[in-house]
Amino acid sequence: MPMNTGEQAIRADLLIEDASELITLAADIPGNGAAGPRVGSSMRNLAIISGGSVAAFDGRIVAIGKTHEVRGKVKLTSNAQVIDAKGKVVLPGFVDSHTHLVFAGSREEEFIQRAEGKTYLEILGSGGGILSTVRATRDATHSHLLALGLKNLDIMMCHGTTTVEVKSGYGLSVDEELKILRVIRDLDKFHPVDVVSTFMGAHAVPAEYAGDTEGYVQHVIDDQLPAVKEENLAEFCDVFCEKGVFSVGQSRRILEAGLALGLLPRIHADEMGSLGGAELAAEIGAVSAEHLLYASEDGIRKMAEAGVTAMLLPATSFTLGLGRYADARAFIQAGCPVALATDFNPGTSPTLSMQFVMNAAALGMKLHPAEIISATTVNAAHGLNRGNLIGSLEVGKVADMVVVNTDTYLRIPYKLGINIVDKVIKRGRLVVSGGRLIMS
Amino acid sequence: MPMNTGEQAIRADLLIEDASELITLAADIPGNGAAGPRVGSSMRNLAIISGGSVAAFDGRIVAIGKTHEVRGKVKLTSNAQVIDAKGKVVLPGFVDSHTHLVFAGSREEEFIQRAEGKTYLEILGSGGGILSTVRATRDATHSHLLALGLKNLDIMMCHGTTTVEVKSGYGLSVDEELKILRVIRDLDKFHPVDVVSTFMGAHAVPAEYAGDTEGYVQHVIDDQLPAVKEENLAEFCDVFCEKGVFSVGQSRRILEAGLALGLLPRIHADEMGSLGGAELAAEIGAVSAEHLLYASEDGIRKMAEAGVTAMLLPATSFTLGLGRYADARAFIQAGCPVALATDFNPGTSPTLSMQFVMNAAALGMKLHPAEIISATTVNAAHGLNRGNLIGSLEVGKVADMVVVNTDTYLRIPYKLGINIVDKVIKRGRLVVSGGRLIMS
Repeated sequence: MPMNTGEQAIRADLLIEDASELITLAADIPGNGAAGPRVGSSMRNLAIISGGSVAAFDGRIVAIGKTHEVRGKVKLTSNAQVIDAKGKVVLPGFVDSHTHLVFAGSREEEFIQRAEGKTYLEILGSGGGILSTVRATRDATHSHLLALGLKNLDIMMCHGTTTVEVKSGYGLSVDEELKILRVIRDLDKFHPVDVVSTFMGAHAVPAEYAGDTEGYVQHVIDDQLPAVKEENLAEFCDVFCEKGVFSVGQSRRILEAGLALGLLPRIHADEMGSLGGAELAAEIGAVSAEHLLYASEDGIRKMAEAGVTAMLLPATSFTLGLGRYADARAFIQAGCPVALATDFNPGTSPTLSMQFVMNAAALGMKLHPAEIISATTVNAAHGLNRGNLIGSLEVGKVADMVVVNTDTYLRIPYKLGINIVDKVIKRGRLVVSGGRLIMS
Repeated sequence: MPMNTGEQAIRADLLIEDASELITLAADIPGNGAAGPRVGSSMRNLAIISGGSVAAFDGRIVAIGKTHEVRGKVKLTSNAQVIDAKGKVVLPGFVDSHTHLVFAGSREEEFIQRAEGKTYLEILGSGGGILSTVRATRDATHSHLLALGLKNLDIMMCHGTTTVEVKSGYGLSVDEELKILRVIRDLDKFHPVDVVSTFMGAHAVPAEYAGDTEGYVQHVIDDQLPAVKEENLAEFCDVFCEKGVFSVGQSRRILEAGLALGLLPRIHADEMGSLGGAELAAEIGAVSAEHLLYASEDGIRKMAEAGVTAMLLPATSFTLGLGRYADARAFIQAGCPVALATDFNPGTSPTLSMQFVMNAAALGMKLHPAEIISATTVNAAHGLNRGNLIGSLEVGKVADMVVVNTDTYLRIPYKLGINIVDKVIKRGRLVVSGGRLIMS
C-alpha cells in the first residue's frame, strides 16, 4: 500500500532517519547532474540537511531530504533496515584515494631509525624502506597477501572507509607486480569495500637494477605495463617522481606509456624536494598528484588550471616527523580540488584510519572541518574518477554511508585517537555497527 | 590438590598464559623491593619474559615467570579466568597521570580559531578557552558531570588505561571546585579505573576576579584549599604557572599552602614560555612538573637532582599544532624520570587514548618504544606516588594488565590511529575484551 495516494511510492530497503546533520555534498543546483569536485570556498559548502533522512533500494539512494518528506515518499520493503540517526551525523562513506595496502612484513624499526636521525632517502639507499617490504612481499603467496589485505580492509571499513585505492609497487618485476595486482582484484571481489587498482611498477628501483634506473624504466615500459594491460588489472598508472628515485623525464615516459595503454596517470610529486612533479602532473593531465609538500607556486597554479586533484597525505607528514605538511591552503586558494588520503603503507604511514587523517589535516594543515569532509568524500571520489557514483548523497548514487557518534560534523576532526564511527552502510547494506563488523 | 607435591601451591583466580612478550618492568634485582622509576638508559630495560605467564588472586599478582614455571606453581580456583596470550604482548595497565577529565561542553571551535591563527593565550584572554569550559561546567549538575566522566573512563579503559589522575580547575570557586572534586571521588568509587584526585583551583583566573589575580590567589589559599582539605577530596595540588596566568611567586605560595595541608605539589610549568616553573618544581620538591616545552637547561638539571618527574604531554603539542614538543631526550639524559600522559581536556588535548600519546611520543619526541612503555607505566605510577602498587608486574602488586594485539612491544607506538588493545584486566578482573567493555 503506497503511503501517499495519487503518486507512486518509492520502494526502499534501507532508511536512515532523522540525522542531526545529513551531510549530502550534493550539487548546488539539484537535478543539475551529480556533485562536482569542491574547489575554493565551495569546499566549505557541505549541503547539510538538518533532521534529514535518506532511503536506498538495491544499493542505490532513492530518496533524500527532510525526514517527513522522505517518510511521505517511500514504501519500505518487508525486510527493510531502518536506522535511527537521531543525535548523529550521517555522511558519505570515506573515500581513501591513496594507499599501498598490499604488502607483507612490518617496518616499526624505521620509527627507531628515524628517531635516531636517519632520513627517508638514507634508509631507502641502504636497502631498507620500500626495498625491505619488496623482499617480504615477494616472499609472500597470493593467499597470504589476500588474507592480510582483507583484514586491513576490515579495519578500514570499521573506521568509515567504503572505497579505497590500492597501488602495486612492492613487486618490481612482471610476475611480482602481477601477483600484487591480482590480489588487489581479489580484494575488490571478496570484500564489501570497493577497491580501485593502480599499477605502480615505478615505486622504487629493485636491487636487480641497482645503479641502472634507466634499464628499470625501460623494463616497466616494455614488460610490466603491457602485461598489466593484458590482464586488465589496473585503471591508473602511478610513478614515484623524486630525487634519488625517478626523474621528471623518466616519470613522463612511464606515465605516457601507461596512458597509451589506457591507464590514467597519477604521480607522487614533490614530496621531499621541489623537482617539478606538480608541473609534470599538469602538463600530462594527470588525474591527481600526490604528497606535494614542496610543490612550487607555478606548479600549483598549473595544476589548478589543468584540474589536477591535489591528493594530500597529512598522516605521512606526521609519521615522518618533519614538522612540515603540504600547503593545503595554497592549493585551495589556487582553485585545485584538494583530497586527503591515508597513504597507508608499512613505512611512512601505518594508519588505516581516515579519521586520523582528518585530525592531522585539522591540526597540521589548519583546514576547516568542512574542507576536510569535502576532501575525504566528494573530492576524493572525483580524484578516482568516480564522482558520478560515490562521494555525495544524491538520488541515483551508490548508498555508501557512515553514521558518526556526534551531532555536528565540526566535531569529527576534533575527536582525536578514537573511532567515532558508529555504523557503516556499504551499497545499502549495514556492514558495521557499534564500530564493529556485522557478522553475517 | 596442589600441582606440585612437597611445596604449597599458590591459589590463583586469573591466569594469563604464554604471552609472546610479558613486559614486567620489574625491579632489576628480584626481591629487592618494587621497581623504582626508570631513569636514563634504564628506561629501555623493560624486563621482558618471552613466553611468560602471570597469575593473580583477589586482584593481586601472585606468580609471574616463564609459562611452565607459573603453571607448576599455581592452583586455579574453580571459577578462574584463563586467558591465552599467545602471539600477544602483555604489559602493565597504562597510567594516565595528567588529565582534566571532569568538564561539560566541547571546544571544537577552538580548532578552527587556532587554524585561523589565534594563539592559546589570545583565546583565553578573550573569555574563551578554559573560561568557556568553566561556564559550561558551572552550569552542569554533579550527576551530569558524573555521567560524562564515567563514559569517558569507559573509553579510556577500552584503550588500556587502568589508573587516571584527574584535576579539578573548571570550577574556580569554593562550591564549584568542591562539586568537581566530589565528582572525581565518585568516579573512583563507581568505575573500575582507579582515579587519583588533584586540586587545581589555580587553573585560570575566573571572570569574577578579572584583573585581580592576586585577589584570586588569596581566595584559593584562604578559602578553596581549606575547604578541599576539610572533605579530604584531593591528594595533590597543581597550579598553571604561565605568563598571563599565575606567576612563579603566586604558584609558590599556592603550592606551599597546599603542602602545609598535606597536598603534594605538582605544577604546569614552562609550557608556552620559559618562566622558571621547572626551577620552582625542583625548589619546592614537587612530585612532578608538567608540559615543560620551554624548560631551561638549568631547570632540567635541578629537576633531575630533586627527583621531580617530568610529565610530558605530546598529544597537546600535536593539538596546538606548534610543531614543538618538550625535549624528552634532554630530560632523559639529565636523569629525570620521564612520564607521558594524555592531558585529556576539551581544548588542547581531546584524546582519551594513551596509544595516541605513544604515537606522538615516538614521532614527535623521537623516543624509543621501550622508553615510551616505561614512561606510560612504571614512571607514571611513581609520578602519582603509586609506584609501590602499580606500574610494573611483580608479585604483590595490583593485577592491572593489558593484552595487546601484536607480538612485539616495538609495534605498540607504530600502530597509528587504531585501538590495538585486545583485553584489559583491572584488579584481576577482565573488564575489556576485543577492545570492548565486558558487560556484566
